[in-house]
Amino acid sequence: MDKINEVIASIKPLDEKAMTEARARQENLTKPHGSLGQLESLSIQVAGIRGVARPRISHKVIFTLAGDHGVTQRGVSAYPSEVTPQMVYNFLRGGAAINVLTRQIGARVIVADLGVASVLGPHALLKNKKVALGTRNMAEGPAMSREQAIRSIEAGLELVEEELTEGMDILGTGDMGIGNTTPSSAITSVLTGADVTTVTGRGTGLDEEGWSHKVKIIEKALAINRPDPKDAIDVLSKVGGFEIGGIAGLILAGARHRIPVVIDGFISGAAALIAASLSPQVKPYLIASHQSDEPGHKKILEHLGLIPLLNLRMRLGEGTGAALGISLVEASLKILDEMATFAEAGVSGKND
Amino acid sequence: MDKINEVIASIKPLDEKAMTEARARQENLTKPHGSLGQLESLSIQVAGIRGVARPRISHKVIFTLAGDHGVTQRGVSAYPSEVTPQMVYNFLRGGAAINVLTRQIGARVIVADLGVASVLGPHALLKNKKVALGTRNMAEGPAMSREQAIRSIEAGLELVEEELTEGMDILGTGDMGIGNTTPSSAITSVLTGADVTTVTGRGTGLDEEGWSHKVKIIEKALAINRPDPKDAIDVLSKVGGFEIGGIAGLILAGARHRIPVVIDGFISGAAALIAASLSPQVKPYLIASHQSDEPGHKKILEHLGLIPLLNLRMRLGEGTGAALGISLVEASLKILDEMATFAEAGVSGKND
Repeated sequence: MDKINEVIASIKPLDEKAMTEARARQENLTKPHGSLGQLESLSIQVAGIRGVARPRISHKVIFTLAGDHGVTQRGVSAYPSEVTPQMVYNFLRGGAAINVLTRQIGARVIVADLGVASVLGPHALLKNKKVALGTRNMAEGPAMSREQAIRSIEAGLELVEEELTEGMDILGTGDMGIGNTTPSSAITSVLTGADVTTVTGRGTGLDEEGWSHKVKIIEKALAINRPDPKDAIDVLSKVGGFEIGGIAGLILAGARHRIPVVIDGFISGAAALIAASLSPQVKPYLIASHQSDEPGHKKILEHLGLIPLLNLRMRLGEGTGAALGISLVEASLKILDEMATFAEAGVSGKND
Repeated sequence: MDKINEVIASIKPLDEKAMTEARARQENLTKPHGSLGQLESLSIQVAGIRGVARPRISHKVIFTLAGDHGVTQRGVSAYPSEVTPQMVYNFLRGGAAINVLTRQIGARVIVADLGVASVLGPHALLKNKKVALGTRNMAEGPAMSREQAIRSIEAGLELVEEELTEGMDILGTGDMGIGNTTPSSAITSVLTGADVTTVTGRGTGLDEEGWSHKVKIIEKALAINRPDPKDAIDVLSKVGGFEIGGIAGLILAGARHRIPVVIDGFISGAAALIAASLSPQVKPYLIASHQSDEPGHKKILEHLGLIPLLNLRMRLGEGTGAALGISLVEASLKILDEMATFAEAGVSGKND
């Protein structure tokens, strides 16, 4: 926990001077003031994060963290658990949606095993950060020990630090884990105070009966484990997942290193709740890429005060929303950096 | 009008076979069915437009059409008319927002003068399609003659046809014209039946008093000219603009040549109303890039049955929303084309 506390202690507020300069420049660019809406505010936010008035993005990194969930024994997902390692191999071979989208935007994908329930063969592109062979069934007791919860967050910190030397100007989060909307709904319910039914969705494709069963399992897990909403590590250990802890670590490390953190959908959102509960100072470093079709995600975004850039009814995870979001952040920064000012272009200003 | 009628007569429905094949492929890709939301439906739509099961995009073109408006004499804009030609030169020098965004997505920008109120010097990158030196003041009589309205649409058809030889797999629309939210609000009111107050916004930055004045001018223009909602050419000539007619022409030509048409914001939306009124067959060829901050745009999208991809509170025009939208269309097609299927990747399907 010392490592986590050290990172939290080093998170600083955004750079006001850089934001003021970026805002002033936006007002002088050849367009009516405010006419690029969220693209303008986004560029000013990133200026504050990077501490530079005209930030540029060269190195984009998306982390896709995988883990398995003991609660899948209880039939909370439409897909079997073996899909988690199968999809990890798909990531490593470049055949998944996240590979397609990161190729389009020119980003690196870092795939990490945080707690897949089978032993994965070594692979040059796979980061081994396995905490355990999947979590335990949260409907029968804590999903993991407190030490494991801390370890999963530390693994996320390490992943960012190990990649820093390769260059990282923006970071996107992503997840893979059959069953992981179940812990995410549980975390969202505990940390936002929302009723389980309002933050539980159909995941990869449950029917009505499957959904009711999923709600009951989550309610049972909360009743048995009584996670303490004031203690995010307790929440993570009782009803969380290793990849969720890992993503919380990515977020803390991103904020600590002044890297904009583009969060993906519902699972990454649950991790952001954990990170923001550990350190509210991370919030200004967060950019919500999209609003997932999972109902709990809307609640998370409201709770964190984030406005999503996209609403395409996506619910895949992997970092796919983050990839699309990074491309919009890049657009906002190019606008700030490359557009001509009224003076440079000889364009008249507003009527008096 | 013969040319326009000929184009309209050649617009065909989407290719059902290509759409069926694209849909089947989407269902076999390594992700839960439907989990990429609008990205999936978008790829299927484009397959139907192109008539190919796995369409690819190499050549992207955004057309930015400029025109001036006589009604600006009545103080309906926060900016003076001379900004229109100044911004045209800014486009040609590469300093405007649309230049930045088309560079990012690798698209060509075609800048055309449809009716700027001053004579523009010849320039290798400027297409001269000038119908007249700006429209007349629609608050005092028709903005243009019926012949001019037809000519502006034909100019849009020509622009697409002239560019086809350079390659065009997707087309984005854009506009520049000080005062052009005023005719767009008038067109929207006539063709959707909505009250002028509900479809009139603050354009580039009017205050409360300026807004009330703008509403009064539009109401006066409609009362004096009595445009016939059943005759789109009449509406365009009475209360339209040359660049708006030109964009309607781009849309018709795009549909005729089976090219997906990504429409920008409010002005392009008003042009889409004209095009769809002339030929409802164009609708399936349209993709709404974003929902503008201009209130009339929401009404247009509802009327045309289009769901915007983005909602970033933008209201700049130029084709900036279309550029961002094209990049999402491209993402959707790469997903369809490049992702591995369950069989290829050895990933298990859903539980029974």
